[in-house]
Amino acid sequence: MRHSCEHVLTQAMLKLYPGLIMAMGPATDEGFYFDFEYSQKITSADFPKIEAAMQKIIKQDLSFIKKELPVDEARKLFKDNSYKQAWLNEIQAKNEKAVIYWTGNPSTGSGQAFVDLCRGPHLKSTGQIGAFKLLSVAGAYWHGDEKNIMLSRIYGTCFNTKKELDRYLWQLEEAKKRDHRILGKKLELFIFDDEVGQGFPLWLPKGAFVRHKIMEFAFNTYLERGYQPVVTPHIASEKLWQHSGHLDFYKDSMYGSFGIEDEHYRIKPMNCPLHVKMYQYRPRSYKELPIRWTEMGTVYRYEKSGTLHGLTRVRGFTQDDAHIICRPDQLQAELVETLKLTLYILKTFGFKDFEMSLSVRDPENKDKFIGSDQGWDQAEKALKKAMAEVGYKKFVLDVGGAVFYGPKIDIKIADSIGRQWQLSTIQVDFNLPGRFKMAYVGDDDQEHEPFMIHRALLGSLERFMGVYIEHTAGAFPVWLAPIQVVVIPISEKQLKYSQDIVAQLKADRVRVELDQRSLSMQKRIREAEIQKVPYILVIGDKEQSKQKINLRTRGKKQTQELGLNE
Amino acid sequence: MRHSCEHVLTQAMLKLYPGLIMAMGPATDEGFYFDFEYSQKITSADFPKIEAAMQKIIKQDLSFIKKELPVDEARKLFKDNSYKQAWLNEIQAKNEKAVIYWTGNPSTGSGQAFVDLCRGPHLKSTGQIGAFKLLSVAGAYWHGDEKNIMLSRIYGTCFNTKKELDRYLWQLEEAKKRDHRILGKKLELFIFDDEVGQGFPLWLPKGAFVRHKIMEFAFNTYLERGYQPVVTPHIASEKLWQHSGHLDFYKDSMYGSFGIEDEHYRIKPMNCPLHVKMYQYRPRSYKELPIRWTEMGTVYRYEKSGTLHGLTRVRGFTQDDAHIICRPDQLQAELVETLKLTLYILKTFGFKDFEMSLSVRDPENKDKFIGSDQGWDQAEKALKKAMAEVGYKKFVLDVGGAVFYGPKIDIKIADSIGRQWQLSTIQVDFNLPGRFKMAYVGDDDQEHEPFMIHRALLGSLERFMGVYIEHTAGAFPVWLAPIQVVVIPISEKQLKYSQDIVAQLKADRVRVELDQRSLSMQKRIREAEIQKVPYILVIGDKEQSKQKINLRTRGKKQTQELGLNE
Repeated sequence: MRHSCEHVLTQAMLKLYPGLIMAMGPATDEGFYFDFEYSQKITSADFPKIEAAMQKIIKQDLSFIKKELPVDEARKLFKDNSYKQAWLNEIQAKNEKAVIYWTGNPSTGSGQAFVDLCRGPHLKSTGQIGAFKLLSVAGAYWHGDEKNIMLSRIYGTCFNTKKELDRYLWQLEEAKKRDHRILGKKLELFIFDDEVGQGFPLWLPKGAFVRHKIMEFAFNTYLERGYQPVVTPHIASEKLWQHSGHLDFYKDSMYGSFGIEDEHYRIKPMNCPLHVKMYQYRPRSYKELPIRWTEMGTVYRYEKSGTLHGLTRVRGFTQDDAHIICRPDQLQAELVETLKLTLYILKTFGFKDFEMSLSVRDPENKDKFIGSDQGWDQAEKALKKAMAEVGYKKFVLDVGGAVFYGPKIDIKIADSIGRQWQLSTIQVDFNLPGRFKMAYVGDDDQEHEPFMIHRALLGSLERFMGVYIEHTAGAFPVWLAPIQVVVIPISEKQLKYSQDIVAQLKADRVRVELDQRSLSMQKRIREAEIQKVPYILVIGDKEQSKQKINLRTRGKKQTQELGLNE
Repeated sequence: MRHSCEHVLTQAMLKLYPGLIMAMGPATDEGFYFDFEYSQKITSADFPKIEAAMQKIIKQDLSFIKKELPVDEARKLFKDNSYKQAWLNEIQAKNEKAVIYWTGNPSTGSGQAFVDLCRGPHLKSTGQIGAFKLLSVAGAYWHGDEKNIMLSRIYGTCFNTKKELDRYLWQLEEAKKRDHRILGKKLELFIFDDEVGQGFPLWLPKGAFVRHKIMEFAFNTYLERGYQPVVTPHIASEKLWQHSGHLDFYKDSMYGSFGIEDEHYRIKPMNCPLHVKMYQYRPRSYKELPIRWTEMGTVYRYEKSGTLHGLTRVRGFTQDDAHIICRPDQLQAELVETLKLTLYILKTFGFKDFEMSLSVRDPENKDKFIGSDQGWDQAEKALKKAMAEVGYKKFVLDVGGAVFYGPKIDIKIADSIGRQWQLSTIQVDFNLPGRFKMAYVGDDDQEHEPFMIHRALLGSLERFMGVYIEHTAGAFPVWLAPIQVVVIPISEKQLKYSQDIVAQLKADRVRVELDQRSLSMQKRIREAEIQKVPYILVIGDKEQSKQKINLRTRGKKQTQELGLNE
């Protein structure tokens, strides 16, 4: 539908702006966009006019008609359009036929019908398009290459119903207010610095504190649930990455090598092979399993600078990583416990809506995946059963979506404005145990290959922080707030009493600050509110004489007068 | 004295082993050694004979006589010795005179006197040599180059008194038992792995736990004392290392570069420039100072593989790092607080004897050091006064030992067998504030340059762990012990009761393990003792029926019968 709506947009634009040349326009995850070349500037002020023209085409209920034809014939249809001709060159090079879509019957005349080079699919007719809206316009290079001419790009979206569209538009507005990149600056949580490098966050004290508290909570929870800590270096010899297969199948995500004496080293993109090494350093007995090793491991992965986005797409991040190494008879229970733990962790942060997806092997393409049939069967069944056991009989099944080394569960959370984010992942791995010949001695005195589970529940601390800042709009719960209480004496007269309160709160390990700046009380309250401090205590003469405090709770209009102990 | 004793050793060897060729033999920090070429193998079984011959030379009280002479004349004295001739070539190339030392009067005949090419200094005569001992013999290459011939090397030492020698020999024996590399394996604390790379420890669960607890204690203490956490990436662009000066003055300790898009990156050898970047990202007011930022920052520094040693010399380590940025009027108080904090941290780990040293600028060579006279004067005085204030009016003064960028205090601790280790360092830095033009706006509305203090109190977590394992011989105090209690039921009959005890201890967050293996009780107790577990609870029929436990406390011979609550 969105792709069809984009065709309608293009058709409307060609009609409204003679001389405009269409370049391309795909559907995206949340809408569509359309790139074009035009002599004049088109701005969002033109949107009502364009939307009206689109609405007219939709009302006409024109059919989408697919045609396959030889490239040479197609060339005639787009004879003044160098973008389409370039695309046709590519199709010709592959010896394929061109596929075009007509909107409206071509025989009814050029004024009415519209044609584009496009593989579809499309709706039956324009009348099936739901509620739509144009969103923004921006510059964009042809094929994303800045050596090419700068085109204009119009973004839009459409939904089945007006209600869905309105919700999405509300979400967009809300998202702007919660943009973690903006809040990150405003709340002094983190910065980026060009001299340090793009995609590498520097955590300022308040952000570092929140990140630390989150990490501490996760880490301590893991230890309580029977995990053990391990620590590994951030760099390792290429010998290891060769052995693990990363230099074969993961090289593109790894940074380059540097030498130490005769060896080449790489900064780690994953912690797994290092954990495997520790498993391997001495023989293991079946009695030792399951082994559950966790590491807050900072890994570095290659991302193009163009794809970087605040904290949600960075070049270095810390995973709340763990590997479970277990016997086949322990797999089911371990997966259930892992899922329970995941939900516990995510729920603690206030997330409520989860969507689980199971990515399994493509049974038609088994040779693309390594590991035995028996192993895959057991693992896929165990993952499915584990989801059912924690109440997720309904899940998204992604056939063929498994990683080459094993099946996995991904968990998406919905944030407070309904956007979905993938955070947690639980994967079974048939690669590393085989490559490293991992084994345990069973009660039969024979060597057996264990199952290995990778799991990161928050996923990446950086990405989690990005999502969490947007989820909370920076209003962290009290246990995470870097400053929990600000005490504001109205004037110098209440300073001593205010200092006493601060001292008492500090003794109780409350994270408290005294704001005694010579600004008006209102201004100081406002600043603490902007900093999203959970509690503001205002101290005036009245409070001082009664040995009370005036409490403002974040998000509540009503203030409260309370005794100190209260 | 040690150098003189080495001459005596050489003299004795030449007498005892005709045909032996002396290569070289220096004094070291803790004794001396002597390299020689000989057709037969000399072992420690020969030491009594050699020591007797040495004792004889000492009794003769032969004088050490220094002579300067032309190289050609010296060549005659060592005519069959290619090692000395090679050395004389070097002296000749520098157009210097040869310096030799006679032991005994050369005119009394060759059987009596001994001569070596040597710059001294020496004692007056052999009779002044105190108590000595030969320690070991090993292979060694001439000039440390394995392409050269393999020589034999005899190690020995001497002290003024027999008592001092005996103490040193006891220390050596004790040190062997406490070698953290051996204990690290035995207690399963850490491993090294060739595929990962030399000098990069992999922390096994028990070691990672102890390391985590130590880090947690230090980190939380810093926060309580007014520090704030920050977190920075492990790699940064060369633009930063150029700006900071590290690529000029610290390149040899840094690993090579790797590219990300158009930029070159390096793994960080220090955290400082990244902290400076966070200070710099917005203007700072005098009211914000002092800023105290701490990071458990993992840094990577180049070390030759030959110099690596367990945990005490590694290629990657985590510093309990912090930077204090303050106004000149705050410097004194900050240094005092830093020293107090250092002593508190070190004392918590049971260290009692400290030696402080102050490294200052060489007043004769001021141009080797950057920063203003006024800055150096203030900083040196403040460091000195701070030491006095925490009770260290006595300290080692190292004139000219300051880093080029500022003066510093180093603190050495003495471990439980009296060996000294340098851990903590507190440095004033005049380099980074200048290079990065760090500033704060004073109450005069003008920009001023702040003082910057680097300090690492444990130093490197890895090195600290190495020292601490040797200090404690692996018997960690209860708060750090990875396993605090092992419960051992004598037979299956007490299993249920033992499990109850374990559950109760777990509920109280005690780190407890149940050892129900089908080994004899004695064997299980022995193993827990080897693992240095602080408390072992043995449960037999008697304990079960009385609802008591039998407690074995680490280091105590006497066991105790106690009620559960006791």
